Amino acid sequence: MARVRAELGPHRKGSTLPFIQVHLTREVFDSSHEEIGAAIHEAQIEALGIPADDRFQVFQPHDAGEIKFDPGYNGVDRQNLLVIRVTAVHMYSTATKQLFFRTVVDKLKLLGIRSEDVLICLTENGFDDWYAGRA
Amino acid sequence: MARVRAELGPHRKGSTLPFIQVHLTREVFDSSHEEIGAAIHEAQIEALGIPADDRFQVFQPHDAGEIKFDPGYNGVDRQNLLVIRVTAVHMYSTATKQLFFRTVVDKLKLLGIRSEDVLICLTENGFDDWYAGRA
Amino acid sequence: MARVRAELGPHRKGSTLPFIQVHLTREVFDSSHEEIGAAIHEAQIEALGIPADDRFQVFQPHDAGEIKFDPGYNGVDRQNLLVIRVTAVHMYSTATKQLFFRTVVDKLKLLGIRSEDVLICLTENGFDDWYAGRA
Repeated sequence: MARVRAELGPHRKGSTLPFIQVHLTREVFDSSHEEIGAAIHEAQIEALGIPADDRFQVFQPHDAGEIKFDPGYNGVDRQNLLVIRVTAVHMYSTATKQLFFRTVVDKLKLLGIRSEDVLICLTENGFDDWYAGRA
Repeated sequence: MARVRAELGPHRKGSTLPFIQVHLTREVFDSSHEEIGAAIHEAQIEALGIPADDRFQVFQPHDAGEIKFDPGYNGVDRQNLLVIRVTAVHMYSTATKQLFFRTVVDKLKLLGIRSEDVLICLTENGFDDWYAGRA
Repeated sequence: MARVRAELGPHRKGSTLPFIQVHLTREVFDSSHEEIGAAIHEAQIEALGIPADDRFQVFQPHDAGEIKFDPGYNGVDRQNLLVIRVTAVHMYSTATKQLFFRTVVDKLKLLGIRSEDVLICLTENGFDDWYAGRA
């Protein structure tokens, strides 16, 4: 990762990396949003090699009926649903993405969030698709 | 569609298909969120050929002033706005997307939601951009 | 821009252009959502050349703890965070995007919103990824 980041050179300035949105029940938000936010951020640092101060997270607590899912899709026993949407520059390999997903899920498990209940959805864009406080 | 899905082979496991987000007024949410969720899900099954248990929907009810739109864009008489955001793996043809949009709109019309009031916005990603309860 | 739009020809009908989502604190929403919405819309008209009636904006006010950020990323002094997510058809050059970002930020500054506090994140899709009130 360090190598990949170093290669960015002039692109690095002015670009930002993963923007995170978390959709979760209000109950889970109220009990654990700080810990969940920290866990996802640490997973980004460890698996994606982002700087420690590159943190942009928006949490959306949801009330009853707003999150709808089927408990059995993908052959798992899903009881709740916590959705993590990631928008990131197109620069990570499939292996790096898988490592990131695994790291997120492992850290959330320590907080009592079942891996089966996690949905992660990543969307990629380009270096020129961001403004982060200055051009 | 069955053919397309069959071709996925090993990719099928561990990937998930359309993630749905619905932005609507709190009034419409309160009166019809179950029916709207079911209608969109059935449209996915019919037009995209997804399995019946592949359902991941997040509804966001909005209060006054949060949804802003112009009533006349695209030459229609827009009175309200219901936004459906779809994130799906890049694998559907333009014809399939159009069939999906038409199917959604037709089913929502049966619930009293005017076609003119619907905005659908699809964003594509890859098979390796998802985690759905297990790797 | 006029030239780019004119080239769209038959694609123009049925497609919609930028869909905007704004994440901000409830305090800033309550005091300025109308002005912020107008500023972003005017920036789109000026920098992207969209028609005046092509307006689709969803605001999401956030309560304490929902927006998490680091104050120093990208070498700026960030005190608050206002996130603008843009979904647009892949058709703008890097220079046009940069002009759009600059125009948004300049107009928001007139409303007392510090440039350092703005995060803009753009995601692109295709002409066939939209339904806007009719096919």
